[in-house]
Amino acid sequence: MSTQGLRAPLIAMIVAAAGVAPAFAESALVRTPAEFTSALARVQPGDTLTLADGEWRDFQAVFTGVGAAGRPITLTAQTPGKVILTGRSNLSMAGEHLVVSNLVFRDGFSPTGEVLSFRKSRTERANHSRVTGVVIDGFSKPDRAESDNWVALYGHHNRFDHNQLTGKTNAGTTLVVIRDPEQGLENRHAIDHNYFGRRAVLGSNGGETIRVGTSHASASSSFTTVENNWFEQCSGEVEIVSNKSGGNVYRGNVFFESQGALVLRHGDDNLVENNVFIGNGLPNTGGVRVINRRNTIRNNYMEGLAGSNFGSALTIMYGVPNSPLHRYVQVDGAVIENNSFIDVREMSFGAGMDAERSAAPVNSRFVGNLIVNRDGRDPVRAQGDMSGVTFLRNIQSPKATQSGVLGRKVTLARGPGELLLPKGLKGFGVGADMTFVGREQTGVSWYPKKKAVVALDSGAVHAAAPGEDTLTRAIAQAAAGDRIMLQPGVYIVNQIVSLNRAVTVQGPVKGRAEIQFSRPSLFEIGGGAALRLSRVTISGALAPDVAGAAVLRAGQGAAGYQLIVEDSAFEDLTVNRSFNVFAAGPGSLADRIRLERVTVDKATGSVIAAHTETADLGAYNAEVVEVIDSTFRDVTGPVLDLYRGGTDESTFGPRLILTGSTFERSGRADDGAFKLYGVQRAQIRGNRFVDSGAPNFFRRVGDPVFIWSGNRLEGTPDLITNVKPLEVAP
Amino acid sequence: MSTQGLRAPLIAMIVAAAGVAPAFAESALVRTPAEFTSALARVQPGDTLTLADGEWRDFQAVFTGVGAAGRPITLTAQTPGKVILTGRSNLSMAGEHLVVSNLVFRDGFSPTGEVLSFRKSRTERANHSRVTGVVIDGFSKPDRAESDNWVALYGHHNRFDHNQLTGKTNAGTTLVVIRDPEQGLENRHAIDHNYFGRRAVLGSNGGETIRVGTSHASASSSFTTVENNWFEQCSGEVEIVSNKSGGNVYRGNVFFESQGALVLRHGDDNLVENNVFIGNGLPNTGGVRVINRRNTIRNNYMEGLAGSNFGSALTIMYGVPNSPLHRYVQVDGAVIENNSFIDVREMSFGAGMDAERSAAPVNSRFVGNLIVNRDGRDPVRAQGDMSGVTFLRNIQSPKATQSGVLGRKVTLARGPGELLLPKGLKGFGVGADMTFVGREQTGVSWYPKKKAVVALDSGAVHAAAPGEDTLTRAIAQAAAGDRIMLQPGVYIVNQIVSLNRAVTVQGPVKGRAEIQFSRPSLFEIGGGAALRLSRVTISGALAPDVAGAAVLRAGQGAAGYQLIVEDSAFEDLTVNRSFNVFAAGPGSLADRIRLERVTVDKATGSVIAAHTETADLGAYNAEVVEVIDSTFRDVTGPVLDLYRGGTDESTFGPRLILTGSTFERSGRADDGAFKLYGVQRAQIRGNRFVDSGAPNFFRRVGDPVFIWSGNRLEGTPDLITNVKPLEVAP
Repeated sequence: MSTQGLRAPLIAMIVAAAGVAPAFAESALVRTPAEFTSALARVQPGDTLTLADGEWRDFQAVFTGVGAAGRPITLTAQTPGKVILTGRSNLSMAGEHLVVSNLVFRDGFSPTGEVLSFRKSRTERANHSRVTGVVIDGFSKPDRAESDNWVALYGHHNRFDHNQLTGKTNAGTTLVVIRDPEQGLENRHAIDHNYFGRRAVLGSNGGETIRVGTSHASASSSFTTVENNWFEQCSGEVEIVSNKSGGNVYRGNVFFESQGALVLRHGDDNLVENNVFIGNGLPNTGGVRVINRRNTIRNNYMEGLAGSNFGSALTIMYGVPNSPLHRYVQVDGAVIENNSFIDVREMSFGAGMDAERSAAPVNSRFVGNLIVNRDGRDPVRAQGDMSGVTFLRNIQSPKATQSGVLGRKVTLARGPGELLLPKGLKGFGVGADMTFVGREQTGVSWYPKKKAVVALDSGAVHAAAPGEDTLTRAIAQAAAGDRIMLQPGVYIVNQIVSLNRAVTVQGPVKGRAEIQFSRPSLFEIGGGAALRLSRVTISGALAPDVAGAAVLRAGQGAAGYQLIVEDSAFEDLTVNRSFNVFAAGPGSLADRIRLERVTVDKATGSVIAAHTETADLGAYNAEVVEVIDSTFRDVTGPVLDLYRGGTDESTFGPRLILTGSTFERSGRADDGAFKLYGVQRAQIRGNRFVDSGAPNFFRRVGDPVFIWSGNRLEGTPDLITNVKPLEVAP
Repeated sequence: MSTQGLRAPLIAMIVAAAGVAPAFAESALVRTPAEFTSALARVQPGDTLTLADGEWRDFQAVFTGVGAAGRPITLTAQTPGKVILTGRSNLSMAGEHLVVSNLVFRDGFSPTGEVLSFRKSRTERANHSRVTGVVIDGFSKPDRAESDNWVALYGHHNRFDHNQLTGKTNAGTTLVVIRDPEQGLENRHAIDHNYFGRRAVLGSNGGETIRVGTSHASASSSFTTVENNWFEQCSGEVEIVSNKSGGNVYRGNVFFESQGALVLRHGDDNLVENNVFIGNGLPNTGGVRVINRRNTIRNNYMEGLAGSNFGSALTIMYGVPNSPLHRYVQVDGAVIENNSFIDVREMSFGAGMDAERSAAPVNSRFVGNLIVNRDGRDPVRAQGDMSGVTFLRNIQSPKATQSGVLGRKVTLARGPGELLLPKGLKGFGVGADMTFVGREQTGVSWYPKKKAVVALDSGAVHAAAPGEDTLTRAIAQAAAGDRIMLQPGVYIVNQIVSLNRAVTVQGPVKGRAEIQFSRPSLFEIGGGAALRLSRVTISGALAPDVAGAAVLRAGQGAAGYQLIVEDSAFEDLTVNRSFNVFAAGPGSLADRIRLERVTVDKATGSVIAAHTETADLGAYNAEVVEVIDSTFRDVTGPVLDLYRGGTDESTFGPRLILTGSTFERSGRADDGAFKLYGVQRAQIRGNRFVDSGAPNFFRRVGDPVFIWSGNRLEGTPDLITNVKPLEVAP
């Protein structure tokens, strides 16, 4: 970089963040996008462009250049953590030997399909380049259904390390390796020491944290290494990692409380070793799913994984004979060795067997593995023909049913690396010397890994007096976590109250706090918000006469919100047709909706209307719905209307618990007392249906769990369903 | 107002804008909402609170106080036109003898159901109060379907004058008189000298410019006067003014190029006199619709009104025997005297006659009216039994068919007031001395009445070269009205281009400009925007594999936009299912969509998908659709999918013209080559359908006009319809 003509001031040569010491290099501090462009035009190998501290709003940076081995061109921050790209920003790079470091993307989203791209255009890519110390924090498109990839690796020999990616809420991978023959299919990328933080359930396909390749080119090898990364609560969909190419290595990674599994979806000759999966018993936490040829899974440690079926601690699938690229290649030559399965719920051999997937695993080995369930439960579930898998020298505690697995009582103790190891037993499961990457060794040190989520009722308590818009003002002033206590009396709310944080509204222990509202909704809940209503009575008497009103609604595309209503009543939702207690907005997804001891008297719509996803792509509006000890009278209904269409197999939800509740004169129209379509797990126990419409439960895809027990029907037609409910004791 | 304790500086006593000279009054200049609240606490009758010039963002002003007759409390602006309330702002007032003047609401919307309210709460209203010189300019909720009233008059003896209300795009009245027995039903409000500016077609019920009362209390009299107002292009729905109470006067108003009519919907003893209706031949411009008892319509002047049926220059309806309040009370005792009907398309006697509306008008008179159609056409259309209407001393030119109407040739000339008067004829129609309010006498002088709309192709011309995102950048830099000229070559667009203004993209005369795009859409058109595409080829080959993609889409709730595509081709919209050329967003409404000489080759969706309004409330997504000389090949279809459900009668659209076009191998699924549901006017002429699905036209409500002429079906099933198409020459 010559000093002449450089508008930006030059500061002293610095050592590039990448740790490469350039000789004779210069560093330019740039303060505006125009200065950046101007300085970029003059860079030489070894130079550094430094973005000045501050907010860079709506900055679509294009970083191009040709550095040299040992003399890269570097783009970095004046101070790590103080250069913040916000608004409609992104970064694309093309060239050779480029380094990007220490930037933060936050408070905005990329207007394109990528936040950080290793290419500038379809023909100009980056090779031998590195991105390190970059933070992407919640930089999600506001509409959950609009897809993008946060990081897209193109080209070859690129490294993506020590970055921190958290809080993606919209569709599309967090990181993807995009491959095509034109650029060469052997990517040889390294993805290491990154921290992949919380990714909420997406509620549709497209929520992978990492994907390497696509089915099209999956017969070729990428030779990408994914190593020493930390995945924490990466729960976007059933595939945390979706491997779709050959020759890749997944090593030393930690999967912590993440729903889904590392899935060897397409491609052969991959190696999965020394990874740690910790589920802490959380739903849908899984391990490794095996498909295709010559994949090796060894020395992995699985503990407390509660996933089952396709999301088990270990899943060996049935394949499709002569499978097309996008379906399921038969498992052939899989080696599964010396893995530890501790307190896992299920190991599924022969998963997915059906008329199409009819080819059993062949030439495979399951050797030296350790299976321990301290509660005595047997996690092994085998379907179909397992003769193509050689079971040898495995141990299962307390006992075994599979030949090739020796049953014996094993005692565990935490070893030096916090892993549970069998006492007095060697050569089974992972070795005592196994280590894994520490959380603090991933990502960056200068930016928090987890945003403190302000929980409900963790803040201050405010009082509100009855009156017109007294509650409206109290909520406007409430901080996240605050609770508003209502005195007895009537509260009138004249605007739709938008909530973007956690707020509780609670009525008095004695006396009645009644809320009326004059707009089509009382509350609109936004992405990430939480609302708890307790001991209130809400009347629809003042609502305007517009169809499709809802006391509570979720905004379009709102994701990851919670709604809890307890000890409360809803009355007179009758001023218009289709007046709902709660209605999900298009593309919205609730983490949880819970009604407990709630009474609804007279509503012309539904109590929970969560059926906006009519495109039949496998999306839905609520992950978990719980309805406990509640009473519904004269609800036109269906009282609960949950929809999850399509045949996609990428999601775990929706789930429903409905217990101890009474339906009276409700749901007498076509859709019945409730309509559950495509719900994956439903526990319906101990409810009473009086003079109501028939309950409806329809299987759409997969193998839903449907418990129907101890329900009484009086003057109400029988359950209508296309599955056989599980029989359990009431 | 005492001077002590007043934080805001006092300025000299001023004469209140209302023209009332207070004695011993003081004036406080306030600079912040807090200062306003503080000063308000100290006001005395006769005082003035003056808001300092500047932007008042997110200011929800509550103006209360008790003034006295001749000594009101005034809230005004330091300088008219320089106090701008923006963001989430509104004003509510309660008390006695209050005056509000000279404020501007713009660049935002009210978070509640009202922008300017004559009440603070359900029990605290304003009486004897006045709002004058207030401008509300485009202060609409962004989602068209979210309703509010811009001005709500409560209480009694209030005056609303010289205000200027323009550009409402969301549902709900522009001004409403809200009545209830608690506050007294005799409102005695005056609404005068206001300028009601452009209100675009709402595309659903709820688009009235003025409504006085509701059906519930319509048996009582409001005694409200609506006088000397100017209504310009107030085309929200079929009722420009919806009178729903008794004893009101509508006098001296001008209705200029406004779609719809002054409708005496409910209530008796109303007077409509000396009003001027000028249609200039524009579609759906109407006059007065008569229902109920003892309504008088005299000395009104109608010219160039093209409305028909319920929206005729004069509509006398059939009623419902013993009608409930919300239906149609039989016309009884109507007096229709000395009105001039010049060049109007229709006068509808007995409109709405059906099984329910079976009661003919009684005890009514039609006297001294003048009907002149210079093109010789007879506008009189009578249905049912008109014996209850006495026709006396009317003249019709050039000839008459109705008894009581004398046919003779009348020559017209413009009189002093610009009205057309019959030469040498007195006592028929309006008198030569009739005057009406001038446009400049309404509203305010210090704020423009009409915003200059920047038209397509009225600006600069820019060139764009082929490449990746060259077009994206060119559009980002284009100002409203600009045109971007493409050179031959391929243009790749990597983001969804959001348009909020008028832009043209035009390809070369020779050679081919092809646009490809990598996101689910190429353009998203926002409210009020316009896009013209000319001489371009757009390929879907790079689009991502997500269902429901669309090359062009309208944003959620976007209203009043235009889309014009000419001499262009769309190809290969096949990468996913339901890939449309154009898709309307939920709640959006196009002014016009025009395709001329457009070719579509292979699309898995529709060419125009405008069917998001599934609530069946009478809303729809496109006012006018024109498809001319175009070709559709291998479109999964339906090629055109227009939906307008519900039985509501408040709208005129949608309208369709489809001529000279060819459908090949298209629409072979259930919905056929096209699916028109609830379309109000369709002209389908001279098209060819080859090996395609059956065209579908379904009447939903009203009396749609459906012309089907000169269409050829080859290897295509017959038209499916539930109406008899009009027979016209090809």
